[in-house]
Amino acid sequence: MVSRNEHAIRSSCPLACALDIIGDHWSLLVIRDLLLMGKHEYKELLESDEGISSNILSDRLRKLQDSGLLDVIPHPESNKRKLYFLTAAGKDLIHVLLALGRWSAVHRSDAIFVPEEMRARMAKGPEAFGKEVLRELAAWEKEYGV
Amino acid sequence: MVSRNEHAIRSSCPLACALDIIGDHWSLLVIRDLLLMGKHEYKELLESDEGISSNILSDRLRKLQDSGLLDVIPHPESNKRKLYFLTAAGKDLIHVLLALGRWSAVHRSDAIFVPEEMRARMAKGPEAFGKEVLRELAAWEKEYGV
Repeated sequence: MVSRNEHAIRSSCPLACALDIIGDHWSLLVIRDLLLMGKHEYKELLESDEGISSNILSDRLRKLQDSGLLDVIPHPESNKRKLYFLTAAGKDLIHVLLALGRWSAVHRSDAIFVPEEMRARMAKGPEAFGKEVLRELAAWEKEYGV
Repeated sequence: MVSRNEHAIRSSCPLACALDIIGDHWSLLVIRDLLLMGKHEYKELLESDEGISSNILSDRLRKLQDSGLLDVIPHPESNKRKLYFLTAAGKDLIHVLLALGRWSAVHRSDAIFVPEEMRARMAKGPEAFGKEVLRELAAWEKEYGV
């Protein structure tokens, strides 16, 4: 169960409740990076193509942690570094990301670009791709003792 | 194909491209009302539980129209009124809304409330529910000559 974040709860509509947590321009891109791009460190998240600023990234990481979507552990190699990872609730947003990606593939095909490697992975279909992504995260979690 | 709206295009990632259009606190709630709640007039959209302000509603309707997600026709009963309706690209966001609703049902069950009538409709499963919603919109479009 995720807790409330600092946005006011606008209604008890399931869609409004989800958007109170992830309905902004950046949160789902941070979740994308943790879920699909193999990123786990602040520096990696800061380097994404969309050019998120450091203060927005810090803010969103804190809000997503407050809402129970991600958590953080010290990096085993350096106590100056941290490792960010998604909780079960965060990882379960994969279905929302896949639905958004499918919509863009149909309705924004002129604007999007999917790298060959990612396209090959997604060619297996959204369900198989989603399961593969979650298996990879489970392997990472095992390695880092999450 | 939807056109670019006034947000800067941040990257060619399919998820970022979708979020450039609908990644804010309000756009998907306006789409929800047009898609699932049988709303078609400005006054109806203004009366939703979340208390959207008139200036935000006007702004989002214009942006969604500019992005090719909705369109508007004069009301057949009064030339002072307008009827808003989703385009094919707008209606195709139903899969995103269903994924968000499913996520909330699992991870925000303490905060959400789904009215009995809606719950009964959704009990048929997301695919059957989605098809029913689109059939109802098609009947409305036929009636109003959209």
